[in-house]
Amino acid sequence: MKTIDAIMNRHSYRGKYRNEKIPREDLLLIGEAGLAAPSGCNKQTTSLIIVDDQEILKKLHQVIIPHIGESAPAMICVLTRRIYAYRDRCFAVQDYAAAIENMLLAIVELGYQSCWIEGHITDTDRIGEKMAQILQVPENYELVAFLPIGVALEEISSPEKLSSSQRMWFNGFDHCEF
Amino acid sequence: MKTIDAIMNRHSYRGKYRNEKIPREDLLLIGEAGLAAPSGCNKQTTSLIIVDDQEILKKLHQVIIPHIGESAPAMICVLTRRIYAYRDRCFAVQDYAAAIENMLLAIVELGYQSCWIEGHITDTDRIGEKMAQILQVPENYELVAFLPIGVALEEISSPEKLSSSQRMWFNGFDHCEF
Repeated sequence: MKTIDAIMNRHSYRGKYRNEKIPREDLLLIGEAGLAAPSGCNKQTTSLIIVDDQEILKKLHQVIIPHIGESAPAMICVLTRRIYAYRDRCFAVQDYAAAIENMLLAIVELGYQSCWIEGHITDTDRIGEKMAQILQVPENYELVAFLPIGVALEEISSPEKLSSSQRMWFNGFDHCEF
Repeated sequence: MKTIDAIMNRHSYRGKYRNEKIPREDLLLIGEAGLAAPSGCNKQTTSLIIVDDQEILKKLHQVIIPHIGESAPAMICVLTRRIYAYRDRCFAVQDYAAAIENMLLAIVELGYQSCWIEGHITDTDRIGEKMAQILQVPENYELVAFLPIGVALEEISSPEKLSSSQRMWFNGFDHCEF
């Protein structure tokens, strides 16, 4: 699949997944895509835990309430270290966001679906911390997001978006020269 | 180009660019790739200003000190609105980072090079604000990054990175089952 097609075909999938094991080589390729993302001052603040052990997945989903992505045969948990790139500047959020976007595109290219789940697990009920405990993540890493991965069982839909001319201009704010 | 290849071939390019105009259709496709990125609660906090007017480019580069990407025939300026997605949660950084990563991949697919320039213009000397003034960006938008775009004149190099086994594991932190 061409890059542009993967970008345009990526949508957040919140439906059920087929009960089909994902080959390790696909999971590794998706992870490698994540690690290939740029990072501020090359600090490589993002790390990944790929989960395809069904017992561990079950334990994780016991703390992810309300449930989401529960039927996916695998997930990738995204860890960050909020360290300074230089002085007091930290680009950890930019770093993991770029890594997540790369992984979402690789997931689409390989014929799977996913959804960027972050707010749900980093809210006041601290689900991400509970997931991190299950995965024995040390305290200097933070589990900030996860991506369920699997073949979609339901229809894929895309949300309504603003038109391009409301968000993109040439040579000045709100200039339209398309 | 396949998505995975674009992901693996994307590197931050800090060299000089060829003096070759970039077709508007390529610039638009790159911008569309950025706008197609997901955003927290679909708030679409990211907007773009594509600059290919040589006079305006010159004005912008007069405030970008030290100079970077000066020889590129075009740039895309990335704007954000730091609004709440829900309650007090704001995902504006994640949103624009995903948009930037999409654009960097589209840039590579189309045969161009670029570099994510953010820290340089959002530091204490507030270069981003000066650029925003030149582009008449209103106060509720913030200019947080820019991407020079052009055909590379120099060799493309990639930084040294940690090995995958230092950043990616299966089913638990630091578990290696590759």
